[in-house]
Amino acid sequence: MTQSRLISVGIVGASGYGGMQLVKLLQEHPLVEIVYLGGKESAGKSYAEVYPHLGHKINLIIEPIDIDLIIARCEVVFLGLPNGYTCDIAPKLLSKGCKVFDLSADYRFKNLQVYSYWYNKKRNDIETANSAVYGLPELYRTDIQSTSLIGCPGCYPTASLLALSPLLKQGLILPETIIIDAKSGTSGGGRQAKMNLLLAEAEGSLGTYNVVRHRHTPEIEQICCDLTGHEVKIQFTPYLVPMVRGILSTVYASLRDPGLIRDDLLTIYNAFYRSSPFIKVLPKGVYPQTKWASGTNLCYLGLETDPRTGRVIVFSAIDNLIKGQAGQAIQCLNIMMGWDETLGLPQLCFYP
Amino acid sequence: MTQSRLISVGIVGASGYGGMQLVKLLQEHPLVEIVYLGGKESAGKSYAEVYPHLGHKINLIIEPIDIDLIIARCEVVFLGLPNGYTCDIAPKLLSKGCKVFDLSADYRFKNLQVYSYWYNKKRNDIETANSAVYGLPELYRTDIQSTSLIGCPGCYPTASLLALSPLLKQGLILPETIIIDAKSGTSGGGRQAKMNLLLAEAEGSLGTYNVVRHRHTPEIEQICCDLTGHEVKIQFTPYLVPMVRGILSTVYASLRDPGLIRDDLLTIYNAFYRSSPFIKVLPKGVYPQTKWASGTNLCYLGLETDPRTGRVIVFSAIDNLIKGQAGQAIQCLNIMMGWDETLGLPQLCFYP
Amino acid sequence: MTQSRLISVGIVGASGYGGMQLVKLLQEHPLVEIVYLGGKESAGKSYAEVYPHLGHKINLIIEPIDIDLIIARCEVVFLGLPNGYTCDIAPKLLSKGCKVFDLSADYRFKNLQVYSYWYNKKRNDIETANSAVYGLPELYRTDIQSTSLIGCPGCYPTASLLALSPLLKQGLILPETIIIDAKSGTSGGGRQAKMNLLLAEAEGSLGTYNVVRHRHTPEIEQICCDLTGHEVKIQFTPYLVPMVRGILSTVYASLRDPGLIRDDLLTIYNAFYRSSPFIKVLPKGVYPQTKWASGTNLCYLGLETDPRTGRVIVFSAIDNLIKGQAGQAIQCLNIMMGWDETLGLPQLCFYP
Amino acid sequence: MTQSRLISVGIVGASGYGGMQLVKLLQEHPLVEIVYLGGKESAGKSYAEVYPHLGHKINLIIEPIDIDLIIARCEVVFLGLPNGYTCDIAPKLLSKGCKVFDLSADYRFKNLQVYSYWYNKKRNDIETANSAVYGLPELYRTDIQSTSLIGCPGCYPTASLLALSPLLKQGLILPETIIIDAKSGTSGGGRQAKMNLLLAEAEGSLGTYNVVRHRHTPEIEQICCDLTGHEVKIQFTPYLVPMVRGILSTVYASLRDPGLIRDDLLTIYNAFYRSSPFIKVLPKGVYPQTKWASGTNLCYLGLETDPRTGRVIVFSAIDNLIKGQAGQAIQCLNIMMGWDETLGLPQLCFYP
Repeated sequence: MTQSRLISVGIVGASGYGGMQLVKLLQEHPLVEIVYLGGKESAGKSYAEVYPHLGHKINLIIEPIDIDLIIARCEVVFLGLPNGYTCDIAPKLLSKGCKVFDLSADYRFKNLQVYSYWYNKKRNDIETANSAVYGLPELYRTDIQSTSLIGCPGCYPTASLLALSPLLKQGLILPETIIIDAKSGTSGGGRQAKMNLLLAEAEGSLGTYNVVRHRHTPEIEQICCDLTGHEVKIQFTPYLVPMVRGILSTVYASLRDPGLIRDDLLTIYNAFYRSSPFIKVLPKGVYPQTKWASGTNLCYLGLETDPRTGRVIVFSAIDNLIKGQAGQAIQCLNIMMGWDETLGLPQLCFYP
Repeated sequence: MTQSRLISVGIVGASGYGGMQLVKLLQEHPLVEIVYLGGKESAGKSYAEVYPHLGHKINLIIEPIDIDLIIARCEVVFLGLPNGYTCDIAPKLLSKGCKVFDLSADYRFKNLQVYSYWYNKKRNDIETANSAVYGLPELYRTDIQSTSLIGCPGCYPTASLLALSPLLKQGLILPETIIIDAKSGTSGGGRQAKMNLLLAEAEGSLGTYNVVRHRHTPEIEQICCDLTGHEVKIQFTPYLVPMVRGILSTVYASLRDPGLIRDDLLTIYNAFYRSSPFIKVLPKGVYPQTKWASGTNLCYLGLETDPRTGRVIVFSAIDNLIKGQAGQAIQCLNIMMGWDETLGLPQLCFYP
Repeated sequence: MTQSRLISVGIVGASGYGGMQLVKLLQEHPLVEIVYLGGKESAGKSYAEVYPHLGHKINLIIEPIDIDLIIARCEVVFLGLPNGYTCDIAPKLLSKGCKVFDLSADYRFKNLQVYSYWYNKKRNDIETANSAVYGLPELYRTDIQSTSLIGCPGCYPTASLLALSPLLKQGLILPETIIIDAKSGTSGGGRQAKMNLLLAEAEGSLGTYNVVRHRHTPEIEQICCDLTGHEVKIQFTPYLVPMVRGILSTVYASLRDPGLIRDDLLTIYNAFYRSSPFIKVLPKGVYPQTKWASGTNLCYLGLETDPRTGRVIVFSAIDNLIKGQAGQAIQCLNIMMGWDETLGLPQLCFYP
Repeated sequence: MTQSRLISVGIVGASGYGGMQLVKLLQEHPLVEIVYLGGKESAGKSYAEVYPHLGHKINLIIEPIDIDLIIARCEVVFLGLPNGYTCDIAPKLLSKGCKVFDLSADYRFKNLQVYSYWYNKKRNDIETANSAVYGLPELYRTDIQSTSLIGCPGCYPTASLLALSPLLKQGLILPETIIIDAKSGTSGGGRQAKMNLLLAEAEGSLGTYNVVRHRHTPEIEQICCDLTGHEVKIQFTPYLVPMVRGILSTVYASLRDPGLIRDDLLTIYNAFYRSSPFIKVLPKGVYPQTKWASGTNLCYLGLETDPRTGRVIVFSAIDNLIKGQAGQAIQCLNIMMGWDETLGLPQLCFYP
């Protein structure tokens, strides 16, 4: 890790919550330098105008989104564009040697028909899509080392797949019984003035949305399929919880062997994640609180088996904006560059 | 409903949240008069000392818990004692003609072995237990009319059973596939100074507790069994949500006939609850927010089927302190006394 | 109060928070009937579309705002229009015998130059403005009985003036030392999708706005002047607190006679508000929590003197949407109609 | 700042919120090593038992509080004991060469009679008290460099004095007109299971406490006196706000010269704090939100003058647990050791 110079990075979509987390974390990252912030509606503003509480350290102006400018200035670019935009510009960026971290859904799918169905956009960039790596380091660490294009996972899929993977990889559960009940803080809805996200509406209220049709369903299914080798259909239900940050994803599944007990599974989980510095498997009888992950790139996992029903229940807690978005992208950057995977990523939570 | 005099009621455990809701609702009920408030630690205090914001209307002193005094003064008594206490005093109260509404778990179970196993207390009052009616009016309205002892349901069972009953009663689902993922506000933990319920700890955090061993599991199972005629084992997982009031219970189950669609089920639910004034079945595509039930005795139900997985998902929202506790007890009182079921029970929510 | 028929009322601006509170309270008021709901953007929608949780009781369609229609149908109309609109239509409504309750600022000012300066609108309706009564019943109960036009007070002025009036009326303080530091829940910002009111932005944050230039300043000053007989300049600072409802207004002032002590002042306050059923003067050493007023038309007052500094500090807590808006308007209606002042207005708070 | 070895530090009271913040910040501080954690009730527990989400990085056991052990092991000790305890042990620690940072009130006062009156404890350690420095670096930076005993300021005094100091130091205001209205998140109440701090009680509620008798009053007055050279009596009112962290302190005072305008004062503030890296004076028209300081050692200041009343209003926002407690203590450590004042102290806020 002796490196004489800083890597130049750009962040497109710097005024949203995810972009802002990237700005904050990369600003404190020891081996990179932010050289470009891009935005659409915020273009022309200083960063201090958009975030008065960050401006004193981030002395940059948000510039228009300009591919040539990005290519000229950045070795690495994080793209926080709406779904359906990155796939139009990524090929050009890649062809000029720029490393691309796409925070949208565009490069999460190998099967572009599935993408087109759920995201309502025709795609022809099959080759680029195939070269992309799904940026979940705990599953695809090796692939990440040798690609230039990362499709950064969604927040719910991150929490849910980290809970599911050891079970699926080892064939311990019946995949058709998988139910994921996933609860998110309201920052997952982005920095947008929507009425249902107002404090006066959301405080003191809990509800679901996009029942049986949330777009993270096929994303989770694709990776489940990759882990098991055959098609998997899961049940996925998201909720908005009256809190700012955090996701708690609960995974239910029937055990293939109902004789398996919690302690067996904890051993398996600990082994599975032994080389993953950000995964914390909790001891028996302890279940994660979302706040424990707050401000960190950690994922806390707790589990239980129920001998009465033959099921396993896994609880997975992350900070939706860090491990669920910006932090995980930087974790991928660290791996891709050959740096220590934990570089610049907080592990001590913001508490209370 | 022409009635010349008010019924005299007493409330034991008046300083807890459930007791306080009873006090508030009964104070405004047109056909009853509160003549006794009982408490243990709060005995001797005026109600205004315990709740400064209610004292101006509730001009009563909390008295010690004294059976003879209750019998002498009350035609009806609501008992908000800890589990295991009511069963020691209810027989005497009943023998003197007092009508008893037990908010604890003591009279929810017909099978006292199940009770003893989960609540860790030996019981011999089989006859009294058998005379008790489970106070869920939407299922046991007729029985409630002719009993003097109501075992008031738990908050989670209320929300969950109202979601499940039409499916079970009609045999539409495979009972062994039932999973209930139920989220509660922190007032469900009672008015007790516990560290995990502090605002500084609970705000911004979501977590589970009592996984695979919450005591509401056998309570739900007992009623499921009563509805289907055979034993049912359910999966039940509770959560504490960073909000004061409300429960959202999500019920998952596999449909016996995967061809059944949402609209069929909505028709069935509307028919099932046609005579139940507090159940609001939401139109297709609308799912309940807990806040919609806030301050009311209503239960909002929304549902969806998933043709991809063959499951039905039902969402049930209540105010845990009203339909989940005090309001439902009063609903039972109204029925038992032959009054309008909705008397004194709010239907317009506290919003925003 | 023997009345054979219901008074017909209309509500313009029924989809905002204030309008919704009016709808809810008037729906349960025993002597009125809602016959008209008016709105601009929401016109044509059923009330259940706008508020799914109220629609089951409010079976009305929101209609366009049409003066002739209001005149034809309503004896009483509540106008929740933006500032500067009511003054254009009130004269016509009044001329046709309609009683008008204006929730905007238009009829709060006698001095239209002050209004024009702060609200940036020219006005010529001096006569109508002079006939309007400031709808703070605790100060103007008699005038309210004999007018047809009420300028309903702002939420901050309501809380602040109820705290100040006994002191000013009795000449106990030096008016030039008055400082009002007033904190409000975010529902005061209305049901509008503004970024600063998002849960993700507002939760966990407290801040001020409109420092030294909030429009409620001249409104408070006008009434102070009316009470003292000479011009008063106050200091007024508002804040947004991360909670949905409630205002806590703190009033500081120097005592003319530093020898006056708390107990003297409590006696004076109790006497001043003896005939005001919604004012609760708290005993010594007790200070109001905003939540105590939640869901009620009450105002809680607590106070303290500081012999070290010669100041009095008064704390005033209200529900900004009820005593601060909709409830107080209905209190005025009750007085104007000769009904019991408390009719249809809750006094038991929504707690916890 | 070339330093070959780490300084050994101990933290007494490591399980409270302040202690936990110290543990977290010192764990990440590049020039210190935590060698001792002390506690009373938590003694014997691993840190992971007390804080499951920190234990993975803080691999220490909480030990009993033992002076000899502290002396043997620590060069520097942070004492988070209840008021009245530190003064009994500090002299011994100091005599053995240990540097002491007292988070209690014991060493904040020069005048021990004032201390004894407000804290109800007799004291004779006049000499030690005189050697202590009030740990507000922006005012006492030079003194901090040459002492071994820091009396760390209270949270409210920190926010309030940073707002007041430029005005007092330059004689711009009339000290007898100072009013401080200060609002705090509930973590200020400590990690104690108190009923009024429960989420169910505190959420949605705002109220005051200790009116005209909060112990931070004489602490603020002492420093005001030190700045002006004569006795000052201030008005101080604290509040609990329904949020976890943060203090917003509002300072009102009458200007000696009413002709002074905001822009003059901003110039003065910027000059006054030019060498203070943690003070951020906001541009005109911008006022601080508590959340902007969240997770940082920063203090945001915004101000306004009111030509109508001749007053200045200053708003000061800090994170009560960092700049208001643990962070400021470390800032003092940095200065005392001759390190960069900002070492190990976050400046980018936790947002949203």
